[in-house]
Amino acid sequence: MEKTFLEDLAPGQVFTSDARAVVDAPSIKRFAGEFDQQPFHLDEASAQDTFFKKLVASGWHTTAVTMQLIIKTLPLSHGIIGTGVDELRWPRPVKPGDTLRLHCEVIDVTPSKLEPSRGTVRVRMTTLNQHDQAVQTMIANLVAFRRPQRAA
Amino acid sequence: MEKTFLEDLAPGQVFTSDARAVVDAPSIKRFAGEFDQQPFHLDEASAQDTFFKKLVASGWHTTAVTMQLIIKTLPLSHGIIGTGVDELRWPRPVKPGDTLRLHCEVIDVTPSKLEPSRGTVRVRMTTLNQHDQAVQTMIANLVAFRRPQRAA
Repeated sequence: MEKTFLEDLAPGQVFTSDARAVVDAPSIKRFAGEFDQQPFHLDEASAQDTFFKKLVASGWHTTAVTMQLIIKTLPLSHGIIGTGVDELRWPRPVKPGDTLRLHCEVIDVTPSKLEPSRGTVRVRMTTLNQHDQAVQTMIANLVAFRRPQRAA
Repeated sequence: MEKTFLEDLAPGQVFTSDARAVVDAPSIKRFAGEFDQQPFHLDEASAQDTFFKKLVASGWHTTAVTMQLIIKTLPLSHGIIGTGVDELRWPRPVKPGDTLRLHCEVIDVTPSKLEPSRGTVRVRMTTLNQHDQAVQTMIANLVAFRRPQRAA
């Protein structure tokens, strides 16, 4: 992927890729075992008596898998450096066997007033399952750098 | 911990606990190896030439560790079920060896109009390091359930 700099970015631009991530039951249970030990994330049997009634991935597992996809989809020159996230939502849970992909749209690009070498790009990121249903939406603010200038 | 129901919650309430989570270099690298393969999260040497100039934890690792702490701090009756997060910020990165703890404050409690058995609790969650510095702040909307009524 060609590196993208601050001046290459504009509102309305869309970034997608062929990157896909499969979330299977063992990975759901492994993530939950370390970070989110609740019955609806740990095993199928104990999930039946819960709000979800079945095994579902932790929302924080969904964000982590989304990060895998962001790296493969948005080729910012210095990597993906987030300063913050707004409106993170999980409209439906990720289920065992789901295959996720990412759709990114640039909302806004703001050069920094204090740091001339960089700025902020505000991006709407939608994580979709294999049925093209959104499993996660968020608005992320990322650091973007200007292309280095050669000496005249 | 005694279970907390919707009617037990009120704005201004604070939940804290003795729960602590140590984030060491191997766990930073392991999380990044699976979910966030960028040089500033993967090893000390390659981190030196980056924006951070040293190894730091992925922000999504910080959210995942925070989830560990939420479960141990906020005793909602049916578990921690998030519908969304607003204003997620990482004011400073988590560094190898940091010990994290959680401070939760209830902002608002809203009974559901459609589902009389439950409502939403809006909580400000601050993740602090061993120097009492915030490494993460977020506002989370969680599902809270009413205490079951006995038959009269």
